[in-house]
Amino acid sequence: MAGNSFGEAFRITTAGESHGRGNLVIIDGCPPGLALDEGDVAAELARRRPGHNPLVSTRSEEDRPEILSGVFEGRTTGTSLAILVVNADARSTDYDALRDAYRPGHADHTYEAKYGLRDHRGGGRASARETVARVAAGAVAKKLIRAAFGGEVLGWVSQVGVIRACVDADRVSAREIEELPDGSPNHVRCPDVDVYPAMVASIEEARRERDSLGGVAAFVARNVPAGLGEPVFDKLKADFGKALFSIPAVVGVEYGAGFEGATMRGSEHNDPFVPGPTITTETNHHGGMLGGISSGMPIFLRAAVKPPSSLPREQRSVTASGAATTVTTMGRHDPCVLPRFVPIAEAMLALVLADHWIRWCGQRSALG
Amino acid sequence: MAGNSFGEAFRITTAGESHGRGNLVIIDGCPPGLALDEGDVAAELARRRPGHNPLVSTRSEEDRPEILSGVFEGRTTGTSLAILVVNADARSTDYDALRDAYRPGHADHTYEAKYGLRDHRGGGRASARETVARVAAGAVAKKLIRAAFGGEVLGWVSQVGVIRACVDADRVSAREIEELPDGSPNHVRCPDVDVYPAMVASIEEARRERDSLGGVAAFVARNVPAGLGEPVFDKLKADFGKALFSIPAVVGVEYGAGFEGATMRGSEHNDPFVPGPTITTETNHHGGMLGGISSGMPIFLRAAVKPPSSLPREQRSVTASGAATTVTTMGRHDPCVLPRFVPIAEAMLALVLADHWIRWCGQRSALG
Amino acid sequence: MAGNSFGEAFRITTAGESHGRGNLVIIDGCPPGLALDEGDVAAELARRRPGHNPLVSTRSEEDRPEILSGVFEGRTTGTSLAILVVNADARSTDYDALRDAYRPGHADHTYEAKYGLRDHRGGGRASARETVARVAAGAVAKKLIRAAFGGEVLGWVSQVGVIRACVDADRVSAREIEELPDGSPNHVRCPDVDVYPAMVASIEEARRERDSLGGVAAFVARNVPAGLGEPVFDKLKADFGKALFSIPAVVGVEYGAGFEGATMRGSEHNDPFVPGPTITTETNHHGGMLGGISSGMPIFLRAAVKPPSSLPREQRSVTASGAATTVTTMGRHDPCVLPRFVPIAEAMLALVLADHWIRWCGQRSALG
Amino acid sequence: MAGNSFGEAFRITTAGESHGRGNLVIIDGCPPGLALDEGDVAAELARRRPGHNPLVSTRSEEDRPEILSGVFEGRTTGTSLAILVVNADARSTDYDALRDAYRPGHADHTYEAKYGLRDHRGGGRASARETVARVAAGAVAKKLIRAAFGGEVLGWVSQVGVIRACVDADRVSAREIEELPDGSPNHVRCPDVDVYPAMVASIEEARRERDSLGGVAAFVARNVPAGLGEPVFDKLKADFGKALFSIPAVVGVEYGAGFEGATMRGSEHNDPFVPGPTITTETNHHGGMLGGISSGMPIFLRAAVKPPSSLPREQRSVTASGAATTVTTMGRHDPCVLPRFVPIAEAMLALVLADHWIRWCGQRSALG
Repeated sequence: MAGNSFGEAFRITTAGESHGRGNLVIIDGCPPGLALDEGDVAAELARRRPGHNPLVSTRSEEDRPEILSGVFEGRTTGTSLAILVVNADARSTDYDALRDAYRPGHADHTYEAKYGLRDHRGGGRASARETVARVAAGAVAKKLIRAAFGGEVLGWVSQVGVIRACVDADRVSAREIEELPDGSPNHVRCPDVDVYPAMVASIEEARRERDSLGGVAAFVARNVPAGLGEPVFDKLKADFGKALFSIPAVVGVEYGAGFEGATMRGSEHNDPFVPGPTITTETNHHGGMLGGISSGMPIFLRAAVKPPSSLPREQRSVTASGAATTVTTMGRHDPCVLPRFVPIAEAMLALVLADHWIRWCGQRSALG
Repeated sequence: MAGNSFGEAFRITTAGESHGRGNLVIIDGCPPGLALDEGDVAAELARRRPGHNPLVSTRSEEDRPEILSGVFEGRTTGTSLAILVVNADARSTDYDALRDAYRPGHADHTYEAKYGLRDHRGGGRASARETVARVAAGAVAKKLIRAAFGGEVLGWVSQVGVIRACVDADRVSAREIEELPDGSPNHVRCPDVDVYPAMVASIEEARRERDSLGGVAAFVARNVPAGLGEPVFDKLKADFGKALFSIPAVVGVEYGAGFEGATMRGSEHNDPFVPGPTITTETNHHGGMLGGISSGMPIFLRAAVKPPSSLPREQRSVTASGAATTVTTMGRHDPCVLPRFVPIAEAMLALVLADHWIRWCGQRSALG
Repeated sequence: MAGNSFGEAFRITTAGESHGRGNLVIIDGCPPGLALDEGDVAAELARRRPGHNPLVSTRSEEDRPEILSGVFEGRTTGTSLAILVVNADARSTDYDALRDAYRPGHADHTYEAKYGLRDHRGGGRASARETVARVAAGAVAKKLIRAAFGGEVLGWVSQVGVIRACVDADRVSAREIEELPDGSPNHVRCPDVDVYPAMVASIEEARRERDSLGGVAAFVARNVPAGLGEPVFDKLKADFGKALFSIPAVVGVEYGAGFEGATMRGSEHNDPFVPGPTITTETNHHGGMLGGISSGMPIFLRAAVKPPSSLPREQRSVTASGAATTVTTMGRHDPCVLPRFVPIAEAMLALVLADHWIRWCGQRSALG
Repeated sequence: MAGNSFGEAFRITTAGESHGRGNLVIIDGCPPGLALDEGDVAAELARRRPGHNPLVSTRSEEDRPEILSGVFEGRTTGTSLAILVVNADARSTDYDALRDAYRPGHADHTYEAKYGLRDHRGGGRASARETVARVAAGAVAKKLIRAAFGGEVLGWVSQVGVIRACVDADRVSAREIEELPDGSPNHVRCPDVDVYPAMVASIEEARRERDSLGGVAAFVARNVPAGLGEPVFDKLKADFGKALFSIPAVVGVEYGAGFEGATMRGSEHNDPFVPGPTITTETNHHGGMLGGISSGMPIFLRAAVKPPSSLPREQRSVTASGAATTVTTMGRHDPCVLPRFVPIAEAMLALVLADHWIRWCGQRSALG
């Protein structure tokens, strides 16, 4: 079975390539009665969009979503909901040199090994362009979890290369992530204003040096009720893990105390329960999930993102027949994808929450 | 939908509780003609079994698997294959005190929040006892991937608490993981003999202090052909991530250069392709997967495991009604689960490979 | 993907062969809190059991179900529920002659063509013995739909060979189906006492003549609320159709006016809506489903069953290598499976209703 | 889980309403390398299209398919394949009167009962307009099964109202179904020229009388290799049954000897195997499937279709609030859907074969 669907009960199926006609998603399982219009989707797409931020790719896509079905008179109908985003600025000719060469760090070789042929234009289906469909679906998921239980998913950049931010996940707000204190755009999506200038400088330096930077993004999901997650395999942590690892360039995921927590003792790591009408914990090393089920505490996750493989410099490589060659990627690329990664990952996390909510409550009861 | 199945084409469904009648798995999609007997399964269960290692739980389970269906005259038939492992040493009375108290760090509270009732005996379905069914299924998956493509999955303990091992993942062998150079059992499953004594000492110290330790395990999958993985959601890295995060106590997963790779530049991280009849890469920062598809290079993964929550000491907690109480877990527990985690995680990784192999090749063609 | 699971949200997975160790089912998705014990399951298995009815197979199976997991202190826990029925009276030697010969009308040839090998003892996995696991799961589904919405599924034999019964589906009761007016067992499960003696006589005659009879069974599902069914593919009628066709020997399925309805005009077939607080229809040609969704009216279905292929007489056939041979099936078989088909089909219909109920309401809300 | 996907390994997901922007399908799992262009899809859509046949609806849709993704340089890439068919002639105002009234025999009431709101324009998602997406996907499936194993699915109208055709399923050709002997279009898709005029006359009479007719269609699938079908639930007969019952207006399905076969004795019904290098049967009462697996013989199926519910005459009904009203359907409708049903049902049957082929062989090996 091929793998272009995600989720069970709020299930998305996507299609589209970097330089094809467009990218689209069908959402199956959205509950009826949710207020939704194209503006809701456009707002999230704008956060992911290239060409509007000096630090990212200059590809210029309007990314205007068309809701083709599933919404009637401003509300979801409960039937399948399709959203199409047409590709506008697709300069396929940038990629002609790559028809027979495999770019290091890219999926050119593995797609060819798997399928025997590939759409080489801009990476085809392997391009991060496909995430536009995820973000469109995520916009619906975000509206759903907010309407259903006041749920909110926020992400921010916590590390660029070796520069680490210090952010209080319990207090960080969407506004700080999107705007600097002076109201100008936060191009890095890093709310730690102390390290922000250094991050900007290092990204600009990487661009000048025709190189790229990786980093880490952090996430919090708030107001998630206790009880979401389906042991023993579809634990909430397992589906979050899959969701994040499914995004291009993600190479590591942790939640709660994570890898650092592996060095703690049980007596430190265990979070004592706090008596009261709603059961909470004193600390939150468990990151809001116990036994793979949400505990009612905030959910904390982090994802490591490798540096982009597309570099505008000559790299040693091979052709499909195994001969030595060099490649120089001339398309429009990001020296650091972290700022644009944030809305993509938020979308996937919101999709997991929407899916688990409906798996547990059913489509009928999802909106109360 | 509940979450007791894993995989699509080589699909396992498990059932069983810590102190119920037994644990079982049905495997659906095993190709016909694979040689299999109960000894194959028993060998893997023995690696996971408690009571045979001074560093782990003293619960004594024989863990004798019974193949109930799907095998005829020593070969799999292609129809559903069921394996049952009866629970022998189930001392439920150890747990009577926990009927109304929530153990910190455990799933008692979240199961109750989700289901409204729970089998409190030894954690019921939330106990790591359920992994016996995973290991049984993993034994079949291991035979399958070996028969199909010479595939091998090896895991070892690379960190206990703050003690880190240094292991060459390209060369490490099953024998070094299971045995010390003098032929005695490697109780930690750590092939770095330089740090082995310190790891043993720290686990013994934790037990004496009624505390527990976390750690990290590392894995390599060898001989995996290029082409496995189903973009864009069921990437091989995504399903490995889900597989590992579905195991109790796993709090972090990374592959290839992982979190460390987030600090690298693209020019360092990109692995140049090496010309030749089979396409390989000079370095392997990509950990054997590009675009979520296996590249033919060895696959490297690491998982962080939190310290066990069950501590034989008094901990502050609450009752189901939210009143303050204390709990002292008196059952038989592991001060450090890493040694037993290795075969469980290997099983899950083998299941992912078996599943993706059959997703791609079909049941008919899976054994050539 | 192999096909040993049925349902999405109340999902069963079965394993077992005719002459293996036993048959078992794992139910994933049963809501927590349903009262259930082994007696509930045993009662349904008794209705299906051979050896207790002069008209059916003399194989003597006690069919004692063991609930291995998922029930705690008399209630379902919401986690996976496993039931095992051990095979007791498995006389494999009856089948030695069939190791290399294909019985006409049986799956011997097609299993061999598919899998390349087969468990020939009693048909192995292709035997109707596997339906014991369906009936066990159906017993749970029946309790669930009764508890959730007062749902009831009743079936009866409406035709044996060419003898047709006349039964008022709106009024027929379980008691009439199971008992004759004098309190003795209704061996045919046909509540039309006028044709009952002729049906019995024709079955006995078929047995004497070493032949077999087909027939038709009819079903009504009552108290099903309007709104179940998931267009456009998982319509309730589609899943009922699949459920019935998945049972051995079923060769036709219809609902409402069915094939007869194909000869009606729209003006006759359309059922006028009746004004009132609950919307009903004057007639019920639509068989309780419109647009594939339950309408709130009783659901009517019928299934045609072919005559059993196992005949204790010599039949022309071929060996695996294609050479001519003859086979004489000497095992214990039914001259007419209709009486035993009724509880099997009821189980499948109840499973469809349980599944669609939970698909729509979720596990959390399934029991109100 | 909602139900807008069909198939497991060659999986389609559809979206779209009668009077929305369009209908679309995403196919996930199509093997790479299949030659495909929009003309292939357009040809099948033309067979289903209204407005080009005096016997069917006058809605005029060009039904021009756009392949949005998954095809590169004339071949499928193995990644997800999307096809969009824009709705052109959508006269929503025809339906304004139906906003609050439930048409008898339609899904208006059940959709409202399920979802609490509905797109009333032309039936919204419940309209047979959604089958345009099925036919588009079926065009791909037809090309696939032909390329993979020479497979062919043919359907024809075998009964209109009470008029029955006599057709030799072993010999009937696509040409006879589409054309009359004089080369003019066979508007009924009935190759029995003796009854053809009577069928045309009865449909015209029904239209004049503002009434509608049901009927039966028959199907043969040729060159299907032995071995397709996944017992015990996803038997080939079960998935064919589901596929046909999922189509609007289908009320009965049978295969092989079907309901008629229920009156036969086992000794008549059993098809003797014929010795030879390829194993065949003398007769084909089993309709090409034994044990739910294809036997290598032609597969025969029949489906009963109820008379269309949309009648341009006054019918008694109720409003959403349960008050009495009358409705007169003024949209453009078919007095008999059988001619247009044929390509829709063929598409579904081809989808089942494509899906089972890939389930068994894998995407990698599907085209040899």
